[in-house]
Amino acid sequence: MWQLHCFPLCPFSRKVRLALAEKGIQFELQRENPWEGTDAFYALNPAGRTPVLREPDKRITLIDSQAICEYLEETVDKSPLILGTAAGRAEIRRLVALFDEQFFDEVTHPMLNERMKKRLVLRSPPDSKTLREAMRLAHEHLDYIDWLIDNRRWLAGAQMSLADFAAAAQISVADYLGGIDWSGHEEAHAWYRVMKSRPSFRPLLNEKMEGIPVPAGYADPNS
Amino acid sequence: MWQLHCFPLCPFSRKVRLALAEKGIQFELQRENPWEGTDAFYALNPAGRTPVLREPDKRITLIDSQAICEYLEETVDKSPLILGTAAGRAEIRRLVALFDEQFFDEVTHPMLNERMKKRLVLRSPPDSKTLREAMRLAHEHLDYIDWLIDNRRWLAGAQMSLADFAAAAQISVADYLGGIDWSGHEEAHAWYRVMKSRPSFRPLLNEKMEGIPVPAGYADPNS
Ligand SMILES: N[C@@H](CCC(=O)N[C@@H](CS)C(=O)NCC(=O)O)C(=O)O
Ligand SMILES: N[C@@H](CCC(=O)N[C@@H](CS)C(=O)NCC(=O)O)C(=O)O
Repeated sequence: MWQLHCFPLCPFSRKVRLALAEKGIQFELQRENPWEGTDAFYALNPAGRTPVLREPDKRITLIDSQAICEYLEETVDKSPLILGTAAGRAEIRRLVALFDEQFFDEVTHPMLNERMKKRLVLRSPPDSKTLREAMRLAHEHLDYIDWLIDNRRWLAGAQMSLADFAAAAQISVADYLGGIDWSGHEEAHAWYRVMKSRPSFRPLLNEKMEGIPVPAGYADPNS
Repeated sequence: MWQLHCFPLCPFSRKVRLALAEKGIQFELQRENPWEGTDAFYALNPAGRTPVLREPDKRITLIDSQAICEYLEETVDKSPLILGTAAGRAEIRRLVALFDEQFFDEVTHPMLNERMKKRLVLRSPPDSKTLREAMRLAHEHLDYIDWLIDNRRWLAGAQMSLADFAAAAQISVADYLGGIDWSGHEEAHAWYRVMKSRPSFRPLLNEKMEGIPVPAGYADPNS
C-alpha cells in the first residue's frame, strides 16, 4: 500500500491526500516532522521535505507534491485533475504553482512559522507584525479567487481541477491557524464551502495538530 | 512567433529558453524587469514574475516555467525532456523542483539579491555574510550533483532530461554572479562542461546583464 510521509498541517501533503482520495487510491499516513531533520528522513528525501509518497513493495519513492500529482495523473485514469487541452492544463499548472509558491510563501509559511513552529518547536511567542502582513496578503489572494470565480465555474475553468485542490489545501492550513477572514469574499467563500463538503476533504478537516486548537467553524462545510 | 518575457539572469527563463532551443522552437525575447512591477506586466501575469511565454496571434499566454515546459513537452514531440516511465518522469520532476526551489532559494536568489538587485536597483553594497552562506550551500548542491553523476549518466538517469537543463540554468546564473567554485567537484564540473557546450546554451552564455561584468571562464565550455 502507498504510504504518505507527512504531518497534519503540511499543505503540500494535503494537496496529495486530496488527489489520492479523489482518485480512489488507498494509502496510509506516516507521521513525519521535517523540522526534526532526522537522518532517516534525509535518507528518504535528500531535500528533507514532506510529502514523500512510497510504495515499499514496489520500491517506488516519489518526492515533491507536484511530481507526485503528475505521477498519479499519468498512472490512474479515474477523476482526471490535470485535464483539458494543453493550454487548459497549462492554466491548471499556473494556478497550482501560484498557490504552492506565492500563497505558501506569503501566507501559509509565515502562519506555520508563527503559530505552529514557534509554539511547538521554538517555544517563543508569535510576531504580530508578521501575522498581520500574512493576513493582509491572504486578502489579496482571496480577492484573486473572487475574481476567478466571478469569471469561471472553478478556479482554472469549467471543470474542477488540481488548481482547486492546491488552493483549498493551502487555505485550509491557513484557516486552521486563524489566517483566513472571509469578510468581503463571498465568491471565494462559496467556492471553499463546496470544496470543504467533498468527501475527500473530510479526513483532513477532522484531523488535529497536537497542541494547536482547532478554531470554530474550521471543519464545518456550512461555515 | 512565441515571445518570451524575461531578463538575462532569470534562471527560470533560462530553463525555458533551453527547452525551446532543444525542441527547435523559434522565439524572440521581450525584456522584462519583474522588480519594476509595472502595471503592464501585472496585467500579463498577476504573479508579477518572469518567465511569461506568449503567442499573441494565437492568444496563448503561458506562465510559470514548469507549466511552460510541460506544455512544450505535450505539444512538441522533438527532443523529449520529461521522458521515460511514469516513475522516471517523477524522478525528473523531483530534481527539477529541487533546483527550481531549493537551489534557487539557497543559492541563486541570494546571489541575485546581493550581486544584481543591490547593484542595479538598491545601490547598496552586497552583504558578505549572505554571499558566503550562499556559496557554502552551493557546495552542498554540487556535492549532490557529484553523487548523482557518480551513479548515473545524467542527473535523472540514463537520458539527458529537463532535470539537467533546470540544474544548469540555475548554476549558470550563480556562476555569472561568482557563486560557483568547482574545486572538489570533478564530476559536477565535467557534467556542466558538457551542458555548456550544447548549442542551446550558447545564446545564454553570450548574453550580458548590463552593469554586471562577466567573470573569466563563464562562457567557455572548456573552463
Ligand atoms: N515543492 C515541495 C515543497 C515541500 C515543502 O516545502 N514542505 C515543507 C512542509 S510544508 C517542508 O518539509 N519544509 C521543511 C524544509 O524545507 O526544511 C512540494 O510541493 O512537495
Ligand atoms: N515558479 C516560477 C518562479 C518565477 C520567479 O520566481 N521569477 C523571478 C525572477 S528569477 C521573479 O520574477 N521574481 C519577482 C517576484 O517574485 O516578485 C517559475 O518557475 O516560473
